[in-house]
Amino acid sequence: MAAAGEIRELTVDLGDRSYPIYIGSGLHAKSGEYFKRLGLPAGSPLLLVTDASVHGLYADRIKQSLQDAGYQVAVSVVPSGESSKSLTQLDALVADALTGGLDRKSTVVALGGGVVGDLAGFLAAVYMRGVRFVQMPTTILAHDSSVGGKTAVNHSLAKNIIGAFHQPEAVLYDLDALVSLPMREVRSGLSEVIKHGLIWDAAFVDWCEENAERLLALDPDALGYALYEGCKVKSIVVSRDERENDLRAILNLGHTIGHALEAAAGYGELLHGEAIAIGMVGSARLAARFGYGDDIAIRTEAIFRKFGLPVRIPAHLAADEIMKAMQHDKKFSEGSMVFVVPTSIGSVEIRRDVSASWVREIVEGLTEEA
Amino acid sequence: MAAAGEIRELTVDLGDRSYPIYIGSGLHAKSGEYFKRLGLPAGSPLLLVTDASVHGLYADRIKQSLQDAGYQVAVSVVPSGESSKSLTQLDALVADALTGGLDRKSTVVALGGGVVGDLAGFLAAVYMRGVRFVQMPTTILAHDSSVGGKTAVNHSLAKNIIGAFHQPEAVLYDLDALVSLPMREVRSGLSEVIKHGLIWDAAFVDWCEENAERLLALDPDALGYALYEGCKVKSIVVSRDERENDLRAILNLGHTIGHALEAAAGYGELLHGEAIAIGMVGSARLAARFGYGDDIAIRTEAIFRKFGLPVRIPAHLAADEIMKAMQHDKKFSEGSMVFVVPTSIGSVEIRRDVSASWVREIVEGLTEEA
Repeated sequence: MAAAGEIRELTVDLGDRSYPIYIGSGLHAKSGEYFKRLGLPAGSPLLLVTDASVHGLYADRIKQSLQDAGYQVAVSVVPSGESSKSLTQLDALVADALTGGLDRKSTVVALGGGVVGDLAGFLAAVYMRGVRFVQMPTTILAHDSSVGGKTAVNHSLAKNIIGAFHQPEAVLYDLDALVSLPMREVRSGLSEVIKHGLIWDAAFVDWCEENAERLLALDPDALGYALYEGCKVKSIVVSRDERENDLRAILNLGHTIGHALEAAAGYGELLHGEAIAIGMVGSARLAARFGYGDDIAIRTEAIFRKFGLPVRIPAHLAADEIMKAMQHDKKFSEGSMVFVVPTSIGSVEIRRDVSASWVREIVEGLTEEA
Repeated sequence: MAAAGEIRELTVDLGDRSYPIYIGSGLHAKSGEYFKRLGLPAGSPLLLVTDASVHGLYADRIKQSLQDAGYQVAVSVVPSGESSKSLTQLDALVADALTGGLDRKSTVVALGGGVVGDLAGFLAAVYMRGVRFVQMPTTILAHDSSVGGKTAVNHSLAKNIIGAFHQPEAVLYDLDALVSLPMREVRSGLSEVIKHGLIWDAAFVDWCEENAERLLALDPDALGYALYEGCKVKSIVVSRDERENDLRAILNLGHTIGHALEAAAGYGELLHGEAIAIGMVGSARLAARFGYGDDIAIRTEAIFRKFGLPVRIPAHLAADEIMKAMQHDKKFSEGSMVFVVPTSIGSVEIRRDVSASWVREIVEGLTEEA
């Protein structure tokens, strides 16, 4: 365990696109120092992209630190929520970047959760065909989306369908920003943390279970360790398969059912981490169909219950709707049904031979009585 | 000189992103055969993007050939002209791709000139974070834009500001498509061909000058050779500097003044090749200021005159407007004025020490009397 106040650091190993992740307290106020250390050119303006909820909390402190270090900073505030991940919002940000004088050597900074990270990252990927990018996540959930270089906006017909792989120069993760999170978002974020254990590291799953209370109380040291371990699993997987040709798909544990639940419920009713918690229980039940034993599902469900996360599908969501939403999920390749299935706690495999009727039975079995 | 009917082939050497360029007659009718040879998967639908002018001429023949080879083909027709290079049009094409069932293994095919190539290429770059892409240029000008992987759409405040580097799987250049080009577009396209000689290959400039009549008469063998040589220069430069860190900038010979002329005139009045012909004469005059002799400008002007291209700025374009438009050109890095300047016929250098007053004098000197 690290000493209190320590900055944890790890590297996403991607050859000449490798980058560091810094996790700790007080990083916002040191932004300027970190940007200089990263070699980000001060001669070109920065654009700090954030959303309406985060802006008032942290933007001024970061802007001040960057200006003190000699950076010129423009700030764009987008509306909070998924609807900002749009081409319309991208168009507005490009206008901000142009009027802010951003050139090819400029850096776009994402300050916020997954929505801001995905949107600002896509801006950085396409503005002048690609400029530098720094992620400053302000949610637990964003420990996942801020690492790995996936950026995207939504289309009216499909989520995340317009995007790019564009790796950041660095991830600066200030733990102090997490204390303002609503409890429900804390739980939701921890769901992705636990997912990283479930796909890769049984010992970390044990640790999460043992430290549930500390994590839910936002104990900085426990949280710093959990985010470090979560980011580590993510970065190992991404290092080995940057563009999701094979291995990276294991990060989608629980996401096939999870995304379908989000879509069927209408975005916003279920938080992402809640939807994938239910999805991971579903995948664990699928494991039993492949002969991996009932204990995986029992343990998976117990862990999520301990963190106060849902493990059942709300009664008003019809199985038909959920199955239909799954057909639209872009994880279906050439019509066959693909699932990430646990083989034990801490290990998964990608199955391309999953029958739709099994999935329907599991969805129905997970649905609460009306 | 190649035998009549021969397919010329060259490779853009970019490591694991290398790709072939095929130039010759009758390629459209053989599309299916070429796609199979390229290993493009037939299990995933293709999207053929074209514009209203080209669609009626060639799309059916290509679609038929692809279908005969076992491909499922959806077709999107965008309005002709620069206004199609927009996020709005991208949004519409993403809808077409989704309803056409395109998945991660699909291929987007651009059939048309630079507008279609840039738009469809950007679609391929961002749809599902990147799918395969084939260029089938139908103009001479597009020998330039179809090679090198630059894709983009415009923003209301700036051209080509939203884009990506996304290399195609191949360029299939059917010379038969060029016979339907209006004469003015033929001349405009040849302007970029000559540019490739001016920056890299004095012998090719000589050849162009000697073969002007054959080229303007669209003699297939002369045209095939000229496009082969033009693509060759482009591909050598791109191979050495894919992302325009240094060398690739030489491809912008004549483009700083040229783009400013296009912007000041309002897009459409001057064709791109016309604007850069005037720009290249301007750059050649700049060469004299750096002591490279007047003969470069005299020779450059004579060549473009021989091809019936403009070498003077129309009288109604004010120098103030042209200078203002140049400030917005994204080729200005950190405020300094950068120009590609010939040092002799067939060779250029990048100068970062170009004084704005010289440029203004040259612009004024090139402007026709009212």
